Amino acid sequence: MKRTKIIDVLKRTDFGAEVLVKGWVRTRRGSKSVSFIALNDGSTIKNVQIVADNEKFDEDLLKDITTGACISVTGTLVESQGSGQAVEVQATQIELLGACPADYPMQKKGQSFEYMRKYAHLRLRTNTFGAVFRIRHNMAMAIHRYFHEHGFCYFNTPIITASDAEGAGEMFQVTTLDLARTGKEEKVPYDRDFFGKKASLTVSGQLEGELGATALGAIYTFGPTFRAENSNTPRHLAEFWMIEPEVAFMDQTELMDLEEDFIKYCVQWALDYCMDDLEFLNKMIDKNLIATLQSVVKEDFVRLTYAEGLQILEEAVKKGQKFEFPITGWGMDLSSEHERYLVETHFQRPVIMTNYPSEIKAFYMKKNEDGKTMQGTDVLFPRIGEIIGGSVREENYEKLVGEIEARGMEEKDYGWYLDTRKYGSCPHAGFGLGFERLILFVTGMQNIRDVIPFPRTPKSAEF
Amino acid sequence: MKRTKIIDVLKRTDFGAEVLVKGWVRTRRGSKSVSFIALNDGSTIKNVQIVADNEKFDEDLLKDITTGACISVTGTLVESQGSGQAVEVQATQIELLGACPADYPMQKKGQSFEYMRKYAHLRLRTNTFGAVFRIRHNMAMAIHRYFHEHGFCYFNTPIITASDAEGAGEMFQVTTLDLARTGKEEKVPYDRDFFGKKASLTVSGQLEGELGATALGAIYTFGPTFRAENSNTPRHLAEFWMIEPEVAFMDQTELMDLEEDFIKYCVQWALDYCMDDLEFLNKMIDKNLIATLQSVVKEDFVRLTYAEGLQILEEAVKKGQKFEFPITGWGMDLSSEHERYLVETHFQRPVIMTNYPSEIKAFYMKKNEDGKTMQGTDVLFPRIGEIIGGSVREENYEKLVGEIEARGMEEKDYGWYLDTRKYGSCPHAGFGLGFERLILFVTGMQNIRDVIPFPRTPKSAEF
Repeated sequence: MKRTKIIDVLKRTDFGAEVLVKGWVRTRRGSKSVSFIALNDGSTIKNVQIVADNEKFDEDLLKDITTGACISVTGTLVESQGSGQAVEVQATQIELLGACPADYPMQKKGQSFEYMRKYAHLRLRTNTFGAVFRIRHNMAMAIHRYFHEHGFCYFNTPIITASDAEGAGEMFQVTTLDLARTGKEEKVPYDRDFFGKKASLTVSGQLEGELGATALGAIYTFGPTFRAENSNTPRHLAEFWMIEPEVAFMDQTELMDLEEDFIKYCVQWALDYCMDDLEFLNKMIDKNLIATLQSVVKEDFVRLTYAEGLQILEEAVKKGQKFEFPITGWGMDLSSEHERYLVETHFQRPVIMTNYPSEIKAFYMKKNEDGKTMQGTDVLFPRIGEIIGGSVREENYEKLVGEIEARGMEEKDYGWYLDTRKYGSCPHAGFGLGFERLILFVTGMQNIRDVIPFPRTPKSAEF
Repeated sequence: MKRTKIIDVLKRTDFGAEVLVKGWVRTRRGSKSVSFIALNDGSTIKNVQIVADNEKFDEDLLKDITTGACISVTGTLVESQGSGQAVEVQATQIELLGACPADYPMQKKGQSFEYMRKYAHLRLRTNTFGAVFRIRHNMAMAIHRYFHEHGFCYFNTPIITASDAEGAGEMFQVTTLDLARTGKEEKVPYDRDFFGKKASLTVSGQLEGELGATALGAIYTFGPTFRAENSNTPRHLAEFWMIEPEVAFMDQTELMDLEEDFIKYCVQWALDYCMDDLEFLNKMIDKNLIATLQSVVKEDFVRLTYAEGLQILEEAVKKGQKFEFPITGWGMDLSSEHERYLVETHFQRPVIMTNYPSEIKAFYMKKNEDGKTMQGTDVLFPRIGEIIGGSVREENYEKLVGEIEARGMEEKDYGWYLDTRKYGSCPHAGFGLGFERLILFVTGMQNIRDVIPFPRTPKSAEF
């Protein structure tokens, strides 16, 4: 007999039919004569209730049906008498596939997230993490679907790079040298290292993504990126996933349209396909979760220059608004609290902020004709602050070389990147989205370590 | 006016309409009075022909319209007079977006793949690599679509791991220590390293994938994996992408059904959605490409035990078949030539080989009751040999610990992995597919370095 997934069993109405379900016991309760087993198989946050007449089953078997145990149940699909579910399974056969000893670390309800992080391999079996990772899956699907439908090519930029062109953050070194021996020689023997030179883990696929876009027209990356920053905060991971689309022939307005349309598509997907999980998280994690998601999808995003944003913040300070980091005027980097003030308090909807001062942004961004601002298009979100960082890219060879030199960078390190501007250059634009930031937003979770299965942070790379 | 992608222009029949196209010049030919420009924007392998009356355009502009240049063309959509295309664009305005100097490395046709690998950032603009990377994109979409439709969760296993549990190959070390100083001390100061201990790049996400499957029911990974093997061959990369599904409650027959159904779905997707690119590759790279793809989709895969396979090979040798590596009998590892003999010569269709000797396979595979074979399910393909490696996993705690000990591995390194067998263990199975091997098969390309944008191999990590 073929197993039916619990998500499918719960939709069936052919009462009287024989079904086979398998899964893990969430709880078992009942009386002397009857057991009610809540069974979950990961296909949905909902459990199916198994009803077992105790006298029909071996006493030892029933004793082993504890929280966490894995069982296989054959039974009859019946209309449920209790509230909260439409169907239940009247068990005729129960097989114990795997018992669960009493020292099972996920035994109790209400364990702290910090406690559960130590058991990242078992927390996956809880309601909260089941919901989070089903939503994470759905967001990945929404992203691939969106770009595929819009004619983008999924483009795998390299993870290991010996290029000196990145420099967007502290990098991890990748080596096959024996660390017990390097340092004994006059200089590190990179000629004997695997790649014949110093190699690192990528901090961004954007530069290589531009190579793809200026050939295939429109590409997106979706892969892991790395920052060796010693930041122990609820917002930082040493290993995280990024989505970086790049589009040939796209201007600043089209880029903002893309960013807004894309992120609304993802959030709408969650509302359309993840409502069971969202309802659980709305109840347990953030009472405003669903309302926030709905409002993001409904509202037009505000489009605002950095200068206008700064002015609003300065006026707010005059009116008594307190910020941890002061508003110091033109050229300052906005922090998350400033971004959230604009989004949550002032406009009460997402903001796309444009035309930042060039000096606080990267060398590859296209400058406006005023010579002091650049065509950035960052998306600021409630609860998160900056969720997307985007810009039009400088496509003019001379201007780009000028910027590289003005910043004291080495032109020779950018030879392959500059070739895109040397040979058939084209205007283009793109953005980066930190995948885990999107998942934080869509799930209502507070700590980024709780939205990736096995978080990598300083001093922690278990599993 | 809004730009139309060339893939869409070529489908239009509203002759007389004004259109705007942008792209890169593939060739320009013509007479004194008229220019024919073949324009490509990466959206399709097909070019749109631009017809320009030379006298309407500036002579200097026309001079700059050389192979590789980027231009924007406004014009009238007309029915094509020539053969080979249905529509062309009679240019009214041409703007040069980026000229292409005469030293453009992708200037000539017929350059060798070896030459083009040096220009991996520009080879993307050629017909062959455009076709390969559009197909690569489509295969990624097919994979995500297949698993999503079948209720699998996309599950991101870690890239950096400090776990000692992998050991499926040589690993790259990841560090933030200063290599010029390590080795000066008595031992490597891992307490000062980023993760507080030795960390490496993953060689497989399978073990962590099993944690996901035994919680969420069915998961798949799709991410980069790494092998620090000093292999300079057309089949090896130091960085490659793997797909690794794991499914709770799946047995060996169901696993074989999944493997066959999955890979046929991918190949059928290529036939359905990539025919323009396949026709090009069929003409230029492998005259049997499309026929091979069609036959794989049509034929039932042979299901064959290792013992049966060995017998066929031994009989073939008796009949005069020569192999580079001899058939040495039970316990030998089949090499690619043996696998291809079975698939290409003997059966002339794909083979799923089962029940290998346990000692040549990994510790986590489930043993059969005979005590000497295990429930493996590798898929062997024409041209490729092993394209999928799969097995049922050993779910019994004691048996698994016994296998770990028998192989001289350390039980303590596998604590978190063994927990899945300790707490609510369930039967499960899964497989691994090397993404680039699939792309080799579907594109007909010969060298694995030509199916990933920026290949990483010994002494090479450019871009």
